[in-house]
Amino acid sequence: LPSSRALARDLAVSRGTVVGAYNQLIAEGWLTAAHGSGTIVAGGSVADPAGPGTSSGGRPTTVGAPGPRGTRPPFPFDLRPGRPDLSAFPRGPWLAASKRVWATAPRDVLDYSDGLGDPGLRTQLAAYLGRVRGVRAEPDQIVVCGGFIEGLALVANALAGLGTRTVAMEDPCLPLHRRIVTRAGLEVVGMPVDAEGAVIDGLLVNNVADGGPLGVVVTPAHQHPRGVALSPARRAALVALARERDAIVVEDDYDGEFRYDREPVGALQGLAPDRVVYAGTASKTLAPALRLGWLVLPEVLLRPVQDSLVARGWQRPVIDQLVLAELIASGGYDRQVRRMRLRYRRRRDLLVTELARRAPTVRVAGIAAGLHVIVELPPDGPGELATIAAGLERGLALYGLATADYPHARNVGPHRPALVVGYATPPEHTYRAAVDALVTLLADLIPTRF
Amino acid sequence: LPSSRALARDLAVSRGTVVGAYNQLIAEGWLTAAHGSGTIVAGGSVADPAGPGTSSGGRPTTVGAPGPRGTRPPFPFDLRPGRPDLSAFPRGPWLAASKRVWATAPRDVLDYSDGLGDPGLRTQLAAYLGRVRGVRAEPDQIVVCGGFIEGLALVANALAGLGTRTVAMEDPCLPLHRRIVTRAGLEVVGMPVDAEGAVIDGLLVNNVADGGPLGVVVTPAHQHPRGVALSPARRAALVALARERDAIVVEDDYDGEFRYDREPVGALQGLAPDRVVYAGTASKTLAPALRLGWLVLPEVLLRPVQDSLVARGWQRPVIDQLVLAELIASGGYDRQVRRMRLRYRRRRDLLVTELARRAPTVRVAGIAAGLHVIVELPPDGPGELATIAAGLERGLALYGLATADYPHARNVGPHRPALVVGYATPPEHTYRAAVDALVTLLADLIPTRF
Repeated sequence: LPSSRALARDLAVSRGTVVGAYNQLIAEGWLTAAHGSGTIVAGGSVADPAGPGTSSGGRPTTVGAPGPRGTRPPFPFDLRPGRPDLSAFPRGPWLAASKRVWATAPRDVLDYSDGLGDPGLRTQLAAYLGRVRGVRAEPDQIVVCGGFIEGLALVANALAGLGTRTVAMEDPCLPLHRRIVTRAGLEVVGMPVDAEGAVIDGLLVNNVADGGPLGVVVTPAHQHPRGVALSPARRAALVALARERDAIVVEDDYDGEFRYDREPVGALQGLAPDRVVYAGTASKTLAPALRLGWLVLPEVLLRPVQDSLVARGWQRPVIDQLVLAELIASGGYDRQVRRMRLRYRRRRDLLVTELARRAPTVRVAGIAAGLHVIVELPPDGPGELATIAAGLERGLALYGLATADYPHARNVGPHRPALVVGYATPPEHTYRAAVDALVTLLADLIPTRF
Repeated sequence: LPSSRALARDLAVSRGTVVGAYNQLIAEGWLTAAHGSGTIVAGGSVADPAGPGTSSGGRPTTVGAPGPRGTRPPFPFDLRPGRPDLSAFPRGPWLAASKRVWATAPRDVLDYSDGLGDPGLRTQLAAYLGRVRGVRAEPDQIVVCGGFIEGLALVANALAGLGTRTVAMEDPCLPLHRRIVTRAGLEVVGMPVDAEGAVIDGLLVNNVADGGPLGVVVTPAHQHPRGVALSPARRAALVALARERDAIVVEDDYDGEFRYDREPVGALQGLAPDRVVYAGTASKTLAPALRLGWLVLPEVLLRPVQDSLVARGWQRPVIDQLVLAELIASGGYDRQVRRMRLRYRRRRDLLVTELARRAPTVRVAGIAAGLHVIVELPPDGPGELATIAAGLERGLALYGLATADYPHARNVGPHRPALVVGYATPPEHTYRAAVDALVTLLADLIPTRF
């Protein structure tokens, strides 16, 4: 078990609370205190096949389910992508910001609202996004939404209302995002992804969308899941295409705050605010459970998205918006992002180092950014599904690039089997053990002579 | 101005803060301190025709807009219905509950969730609704939603998916609710409302909905806006109808916690949990800005509503749910409801007394419940629109029963012109002045000889 000091920090409780809990569990026989080597579980191990995460104890059938899912099965080690380290949520700063909000907010903020989002938060976001991501936004272009999923649904509905029938999306991308677009009555065409990001050549021919208005959804800063950045040439070509074809580009900037090897490239939106919807989120910087995201809309989409909001009777809950605005204004949001950037960079470094040292036949792909890496397996090794299954046996949850998690990866021709490893997911005190479990798994499965 | 003590309590700040602000404004010449008669505005009055709320200063065109609306124009006196006293939000208890949540919540609650709502809140709600409203609910029948608007949209979509084509709704009801149902592809048929509540006789004939499955939306505890309760005979008849016609009844219990003359009648859902959807909300007990409501679903709707949630990628923000659960569990929610019940009862009593004393030709209709009363105007008096317009001239915002606020009231035959007066809307320190403004208006407009 982690030291009482480390666990207390992760859980944001006092050390006395943790020591008390450990002592109780020692008294009841669940734990053993070994002087000099900390506290260990009595007569068991995390890789115990009867433990959670295996076919008998856990709910392994939910592993591999695409997109967000229900309460997570209690895998000892979870390296699936798509979430930040939830134990690092800034509980203290958030609560302090809440206090300031309750001490100062006028009563009218508690009323029904117009659904576009708290004006104070939109003002803070306009400044923050300009400063950090090079987004060109006025507050009244911003709509606060419930994360990217809801934002994408809003934009897809608005595009459909404007006569768009076809939306180009990256292959692979999150299947849930495809479903959202399809449900709006739009047809999805795939764009392959190579080392320069989405390949948009196919969109240049006029028969895509019958020459009608086109929507394009991309992840320029860090393609999900492949982990590459959209190259400068492609960025320029995409903007030119959008102008020429009257297309709207949705820029899903889900993890744009996290770049480790250089200053992040600014948002695509900065190149063409009239054609690009910028979509950001607090799901990766803070926590998915906040359901807080934001859209920066080009003029042409302002009215359709607002109409769609009004027609849905849609209004965001307000309190969390006020707290987030306060957190941004006070600098607490930036501090949290900096803190986590450092933490995730170190995690990525550890993972890359350990893989190189102990499983040298795998290959890490993608830029040094975000919360996940692609770990390519040797083509003549055990493959994705066998690796994932073997991981489950050891209580280690993994995603595969061409498994059910990203089924469209299969459409885009041959590729090396690969894992999509989310190094932000484990709490800090288990990260090293999780990396060890992964590297040991790969070293065991893949004889080094390959 | 209110006393520093009263204002400090309303704003949940220290009295020293208010005194400091008053002194500053006195120093700047905005206020005048008159010994023995408190603090007054220097050289102006709240009914000043150049002040906010009139055609020059305010935004009177938004008055009368149906349903929830944007930031409220700063009328000095607002007696429109549909909202609680926002200055009475329990900021201290809410913040204290937030503290307890952040000290104890496991990190997993910050993850993506299954969209049905926090399990802890659903457990608390099941017990609370059983105890307070006689609702028969297991936690897994409950879905947490964003207030009644979102809840109604979910149920309407689910009903449409089950083959329902027709939904009966009360005439009058909130136009926004009608639009939500219509947008789900359902046809709305109106039910008149008399002194016993919704008249359901028309639904007994088989040609309504071509004999197909039927949806019915009612406000049994306190019809909105007419203010009557559904009589015991009608309750029984509605349940019988639901059984016979395979109908689903949606019980909109928007203000069921507030009954002043007797113990409240239990929810209709308690009579037929297999046919009735119970819908409750925190919008009237706490604040609309929370966007927190709940549905208790009959078995037959569980799956369709869950599917609809999943397909929308819909997930509630979690923090406020945890705080509300904590507030209910700690008794703070009940305390707030009791406190506000007493306050609103006194407000209603004051309004009824003052109307009887100074405008005896108007008639108060509806039961002693909820947050609004119907004030019927004499048939030969100035009518609704003239009364509302005259109110605006004096900075007093009012709703009319058959104006744009409730256009369907016009469909249901002749009725006396009436105002729908929301006595919960003003903050406590302006309530007496608001009543005075209303009563003076009516006394001026309606000569007592009528």
